Amino acid sequence: MHHSPKIKVLAFDIFGTVVDWHSSIVQEVERLALNIDANQFALDWRAGYRPAMDQVVSGQQPWISIDDIHRLILDELLVKYQISTLSEAQKNDLNFIWHRLNPWPDTVAALNQLKQDYIICTLSNGNIRLLVDLAKYAKLPWDTIFSAENFKAYKPSPQTYLGVADLLNVAPSQVMMVATHQDDLSAARACGLRTAYIERPFEYGAAQLKDSIQCIDNDLHATDLLNLASLLKEKA
Amino acid sequence: MHHSPKIKVLAFDIFGTVVDWHSSIVQEVERLALNIDANQFALDWRAGYRPAMDQVVSGQQPWISIDDIHRLILDELLVKYQISTLSEAQKNDLNFIWHRLNPWPDTVAALNQLKQDYIICTLSNGNIRLLVDLAKYAKLPWDTIFSAENFKAYKPSPQTYLGVADLLNVAPSQVMMVATHQDDLSAARACGLRTAYIERPFEYGAAQLKDSIQCIDNDLHATDLLNLASLLKEKA
Repeated sequence: MHHSPKIKVLAFDIFGTVVDWHSSIVQEVERLALNIDANQFALDWRAGYRPAMDQVVSGQQPWISIDDIHRLILDELLVKYQISTLSEAQKNDLNFIWHRLNPWPDTVAALNQLKQDYIICTLSNGNIRLLVDLAKYAKLPWDTIFSAENFKAYKPSPQTYLGVADLLNVAPSQVMMVATHQDDLSAARACGLRTAYIERPFEYGAAQLKDSIQCIDNDLHATDLLNLASLLKEKA
Repeated sequence: MHHSPKIKVLAFDIFGTVVDWHSSIVQEVERLALNIDANQFALDWRAGYRPAMDQVVSGQQPWISIDDIHRLILDELLVKYQISTLSEAQKNDLNFIWHRLNPWPDTVAALNQLKQDYIICTLSNGNIRLLVDLAKYAKLPWDTIFSAENFKAYKPSPQTYLGVADLLNVAPSQVMMVATHQDDLSAARACGLRTAYIERPFEYGAAQLKDSIQCIDNDLHATDLLNLASLLKEKA
């Protein structure tokens, strides 16, 4: 009979898993009345983020924070979309939309529930200040915040997953990574963490529904975070 | 006219400032019916902590966590107090009393109030897991947790104070260190932080009242954390 150690920590991916970056950015862009395709602008902004981080992961670039990565991409997009009406203060404020993203409808209730039984923390590529601001804005009741910035390494670098286990003084198998991205979960699993996939079909907006194919390697597959709480109760 | 940048972050010392370690340990020792002077035992346990950390600060010893420091001191005290009745599990559980300390009566209400206007975080020599457990036990609503462990350096090393400002992306002068120990505040001030002293006359128990002499170098001197919240409102 297989005995797994008890899960003590749930480590959450943030963008897409806990908060709805797409609709939050679309709303902000529409509020600014920039007269552009807000859906495409949001997708483009997000799409630029992985290549920039990958240069850090591969060692081609030294450490750079997500705030700075977001700003570099934003400056490129302002040229591409021919937006020349924003002041420096407005550009800066727009960049900080990533600190004010709305949670999914199930998020806050589920986190408060899960916090009763587990240590709940972030493990995000977002920088610490971004994650702190986001938690205050969206009322996310984290026990603590961990970021790529703690380890000066971006997910999927093993230092990030193993770093959470180390700093919380638990075995990697006592940490469950929770995310809506299979590549994040796959890297966590390779480090010995448990994994839970969360379906977020609207991560990229209603015009581009995301497939949620079950991956048998995950310990759990949940339709949302409230469903995750139920599945963990059943398992316990 | 002197313009100071607005305070954005309140960083709290924990042992003595936010939680009442002395009475918590006395209660636990009395519960265990060890038939010893619980007051003196608590004082001895706490007194061993600073010399052990100072060896790390001075570079004489490599990094060692507070959990491990507490256990080393406990093992010495069990010999000194001739306690031979505890099993390994009981010793381990006793050591983890430092993860279950009671807050002062004003603490939780004050932190919830201060959290409305500031980023509130720990800056403690306690390890991260200890601080997470303590927050869950005592319902301390931190925005995030910072520990000496994040910087592999104990207070009063400058890395700790400057590290908080750096990780939260603010100037040192936008961080106010809150503590009931003048040496902690003095070191924070030397790094450019603001400082608030909190009177905790009962830190060492009722038999050894602590003097709370005003130090003019501190920005604020508060009778407790609710008083700190009032003083910050007046200042704003």
